[in-house]
Amino acid sequence: MSSPIIVRTVAEMRAHVRAWKTAGQRVALVPTMGALHEGHLSLIRIARQNADRVVATIFVNPKQFAPHEDFDAYPRGEAADVEKLASVGCDLLFAPNGAEMYAPGFASAVSVSGVSEPLEGAARPQFFGGVATVVAKLFNQSQADVAVFGEKDYQQLQVVKRMARDLDIPIAIIGAPTARAEDGLALSSRNAYLSAPERAAAVALPTAMKAAAAEIAAGGRIDAAEQKATAALQAAGFGQVDYVEVREASDLSRLGPGPIGDAQGRILIAAWLGKTRLIDNMAVG
Amino acid sequence: MSSPIIVRTVAEMRAHVRAWKTAGQRVALVPTMGALHEGHLSLIRIARQNADRVVATIFVNPKQFAPHEDFDAYPRGEAADVEKLASVGCDLLFAPNGAEMYAPGFASAVSVSGVSEPLEGAARPQFFGGVATVVAKLFNQSQADVAVFGEKDYQQLQVVKRMARDLDIPIAIIGAPTARAEDGLALSSRNAYLSAPERAAAVALPTAMKAAAAEIAAGGRIDAAEQKATAALQAAGFGQVDYVEVREASDLSRLGPGPIGDAQGRILIAAWLGKTRLIDNMAVG
Repeated sequence: MSSPIIVRTVAEMRAHVRAWKTAGQRVALVPTMGALHEGHLSLIRIARQNADRVVATIFVNPKQFAPHEDFDAYPRGEAADVEKLASVGCDLLFAPNGAEMYAPGFASAVSVSGVSEPLEGAARPQFFGGVATVVAKLFNQSQADVAVFGEKDYQQLQVVKRMARDLDIPIAIIGAPTARAEDGLALSSRNAYLSAPERAAAVALPTAMKAAAAEIAAGGRIDAAEQKATAALQAAGFGQVDYVEVREASDLSRLGPGPIGDAQGRILIAAWLGKTRLIDNMAVG
Repeated sequence: MSSPIIVRTVAEMRAHVRAWKTAGQRVALVPTMGALHEGHLSLIRIARQNADRVVATIFVNPKQFAPHEDFDAYPRGEAADVEKLASVGCDLLFAPNGAEMYAPGFASAVSVSGVSEPLEGAARPQFFGGVATVVAKLFNQSQADVAVFGEKDYQQLQVVKRMARDLDIPIAIIGAPTARAEDGLALSSRNAYLSAPERAAAVALPTAMKAAAAEIAAGGRIDAAEQKATAALQAAGFGQVDYVEVREASDLSRLGPGPIGDAQGRILIAAWLGKTRLIDNMAVG
């Protein structure tokens, strides 16, 4: 397929989107931070199924990194990303620089309480504020009809849905299933940080998660399944386990400690393997 | 002229706006809290000059009132408001109830630092967060091309401009000159709270403001002019003077204490007359 149009400014992106919408075409947005892998490409494919045109964005958003986090080290490689986008028929890539996104004098912030507070929000206090702000901007900048986000970042997906609904941004949000390696590890740009032995050990995360989900689905206690998964991670060589928690699927309120009953749950895990923090989640109950 | 269409839901407002925009018409939005007076009607007239269709909104936004403020007492009277809107050719009135604006589970907020912090922001800590959130919603709900705000609420105008620019909401913001009574008092819904003697005394506010602006324009020191205006208000029977300050016109950073030089300034005043808080402002320098 042909290469996507590459634009660096909001004005150019809007001009293309306006022309498509005027022609009656539906436009989908897939926001990314680049370092694209098969997981991102699956989002682009789902976007294509839901729209006539697909806009991908690549912007490593400084506002969602804390000073001690990996903003500088985050993998970047636009040429390879563009090739991958071309392979799945992405129409346009918006890849702005920092000044296009945050002009001098920028002073606004979007925040979401509740769903953004536990789990990733507790571990990374400025993360979801940064995400909500940049995603609100990308929605308004692109004027897209629909946006696709991966369930891999499940809490982010719920925060974005809440934000778009609360601020009445006229865009439909689609959650896309997590793409996984053959052994079950969720695809992530940060997997590139793993050494070969770490990569081999990483499979313990999806394995422990699936075992916990199955145990809870069979009527087991949530607290026992969480503890067992935590122990399995530590036995496999994981260091700090930030959380293993079963939560209500849409508002992420706490479930348990007993059996899940009729609730729609989600098990969410974050744990460190060496210097790399991995996250994963799946439906439960 | 004919009465405006009255709608209570975002979906109805959007359907009308979509039909107008599809027909190539430009749509202007005038957000209000009702209790309309000639000042609001001047905003509608300016909106008409800048668009083919004018949408007014009436919503007394609980998020911009503190618990001790006058949310319950704030004047309301839709029938009279609709008559006034009809007299100036407003096409549509969006008058939602609280649940349409803030559905159960609402959890998002828009905030603006810097320009929202001094003056009204210092006196009313939650005010501009409430304003920025509801205005972002109204912009996204209406999908209007242009919005008109009065310079009467000058700091609000700057906060709204900053917010719309920062979040890339595709709407142009027009500031409209303050409408005044014959004696110079700025029109305000809260003037209805003034007793007859208070109303007579209130003229001291625009008088002191104009005198200070003239003195500064003639090369006088800013600190001296601010002090003189404060003294004049107190001599006229005003109680607490929250602020009399000359600030840079767009970012509201502090000017003075000496002569204004080449700066574009704005003198801003807030002061209490009995139980009523009055604000006003004008260009200086």
